[in-house]
Amino acid sequence: PTNSREIAGASEPLPSWNDVASKQAIIDFVEDVTNPQSPNFIEEQSRIATFDNDGTLWSEQPVYFQFFFVIDRIKSMAEDHPEWKNEQPYKAILENDMPTLMQQGMPGLLKVVMTTHAGITTDEFDKIVKDWIASAKHPTKNRPYTDLVFQPMLELVKYLQEYDFKVFIVSGGGIDFMRPWAEEVYGISRDRIVGSSIKTEYDYNEGNPVIKRLPEIDLIDDKEGKPIGIHRYIGRKPVFAAGNSDGDLQMLRWSAANELKNFQLYVHHTDSLREWAYDRGSHIGGFDKGWDEASEKGWTLVDMKNDWKVIYPYELDTVK
Amino acid sequence: PTNSREIAGASEPLPSWNDVASKQAIIDFVEDVTNPQSPNFIEEQSRIATFDNDGTLWSEQPVYFQFFFVIDRIKSMAEDHPEWKNEQPYKAILENDMPTLMQQGMPGLLKVVMTTHAGITTDEFDKIVKDWIASAKHPTKNRPYTDLVFQPMLELVKYLQEYDFKVFIVSGGGIDFMRPWAEEVYGISRDRIVGSSIKTEYDYNEGNPVIKRLPEIDLIDDKEGKPIGIHRYIGRKPVFAAGNSDGDLQMLRWSAANELKNFQLYVHHTDSLREWAYDRGSHIGGFDKGWDEASEKGWTLVDMKNDWKVIYPYELDTVK
Ligand SMILES: [Ca+2]
Ligand SMILES: [Ca+2]
Repeated sequence: PTNSREIAGASEPLPSWNDVASKQAIIDFVEDVTNPQSPNFIEEQSRIATFDNDGTLWSEQPVYFQFFFVIDRIKSMAEDHPEWKNEQPYKAILENDMPTLMQQGMPGLLKVVMTTHAGITTDEFDKIVKDWIASAKHPTKNRPYTDLVFQPMLELVKYLQEYDFKVFIVSGGGIDFMRPWAEEVYGISRDRIVGSSIKTEYDYNEGNPVIKRLPEIDLIDDKEGKPIGIHRYIGRKPVFAAGNSDGDLQMLRWSAANELKNFQLYVHHTDSLREWAYDRGSHIGGFDKGWDEASEKGWTLVDMKNDWKVIYPYELDTVK
Repeated sequence: PTNSREIAGASEPLPSWNDVASKQAIIDFVEDVTNPQSPNFIEEQSRIATFDNDGTLWSEQPVYFQFFFVIDRIKSMAEDHPEWKNEQPYKAILENDMPTLMQQGMPGLLKVVMTTHAGITTDEFDKIVKDWIASAKHPTKNRPYTDLVFQPMLELVKYLQEYDFKVFIVSGGGIDFMRPWAEEVYGISRDRIVGSSIKTEYDYNEGNPVIKRLPEIDLIDDKEGKPIGIHRYIGRKPVFAAGNSDGDLQMLRWSAANELKNFQLYVHHTDSLREWAYDRGSHIGGFDKGWDEASEKGWTLVDMKNDWKVIYPYELDTVK
């Protein structure tokens, strides 16, 4: 999907973007900071771009896609766990009883996340995610989750890479949940994916070493955790940061603290027909303080409905 | 990609290496796994190379260079801490009393490391290290520490990069101690440096966000910590791993567990005249179990005295 631009035969950057202010602002920034004659010129080593994932690079409704992974995984593990029929929150998941599941709150969520993400090796988890992403389908869109990535954002990632930006994902989602597929889908390599993580343990395993995934949080790469994750993994402030919710505000502020010229972008979910429309007060991807600060500071707001010709790559045919 | 070197007009690879078995083994491996016609061909995305730093990319005697940073830093902080004149282990450092300092053991070491590495922001620490590395000199070599890097290893890093390997440092040393200078000295970017770390905290700081360094260990990137660090930061097993001590054994084993063709290299410090000679039983860079396993498994041993024409870049003039 990342080379749709070439398929379309367009040399114009960001072809799935309408001729709107957000597109022009991106191009103006990139052309300025990569121009050696500009006072705002940025050396390649400092061209760091960080993108949130859920709601910024792909959809996140009706719940984060990683949560569908958890549900599917619990169901497929259930035959080895007959006791789950009577144990919450497993019972609720097996009975598709979302209200009861939600009542379990954070402790219940953490329990099923650890059940599905820990207790196995990193290689085993990698394969489980790969198999799931290749077969699972979104409940209402009825398509693979990797079809539900934003074509205009794929073009933006590629555009920045063409100008020698190092593009990183910085997501609240699991780092090892993204690594198995994000490289191929986004063109962002595994070592440039930053996300939430659990602790691990090395085991020599009689000469066949493995790394075991432990049921203990290491980093929650959300809100204050995003600058922390950026420092941990990248070691430089970004000059370009893109997100969609209040969870990205600290990351955007961190990039705005860069002494080099910098750019902040918020994707605003305004398209109830082609995608979903939500912002203030949404339980997923709530966009409230971030919206206010973006307006106040003149950060770039992308109006999905008006700024984008298509949302998903599979719609490209329809606009030709 | 394999002919980019030829296009660039590069001459013989690894010029500071004698025509020895270790050099030939490296070239044979690289030419094999980057040859699309070879059954051992490795796609670019999987060409991960990991290098230990202390004793592998630069010297580490009489003590790890980061320890000289700690000592110098304590001395320069001392005027704001008159109480240190009577408080160990500060007193020992201020009096250059190494035996007493060593008697403080790990708790004493941890205390001075945290005093010198924590309690400030990441930006402040970065600047302190940059200033130190630009001015400090090795006590016996009387040269900047960055002069004491191994010319043949610089050539090896560059050679791998020319064949589209992603080269990472994976060191027991501090990640934020290496980042300020390693990029320029080794040609390895900040986001490809893996090392030991302390915990951090984001502070909005009334609109001027900073990340504070906390006096608490996050990752000890040594021994079992090296595969952990590799998984955390890179997310792939290396196909090429280089070290010099038992602290690298787990990293080399981890690369040897790669299903792709892989290569393990140990630098053996055999040159008492040009560098230092040490291995079994050395308190710095002890090389014992690693040596045995390398011999048993046929890993490549680099004999510094016999395999390298020069040790340091500043010696290059002398052999021309
Ligand atoms: Ca998001
Ligand atoms: Ca070492």
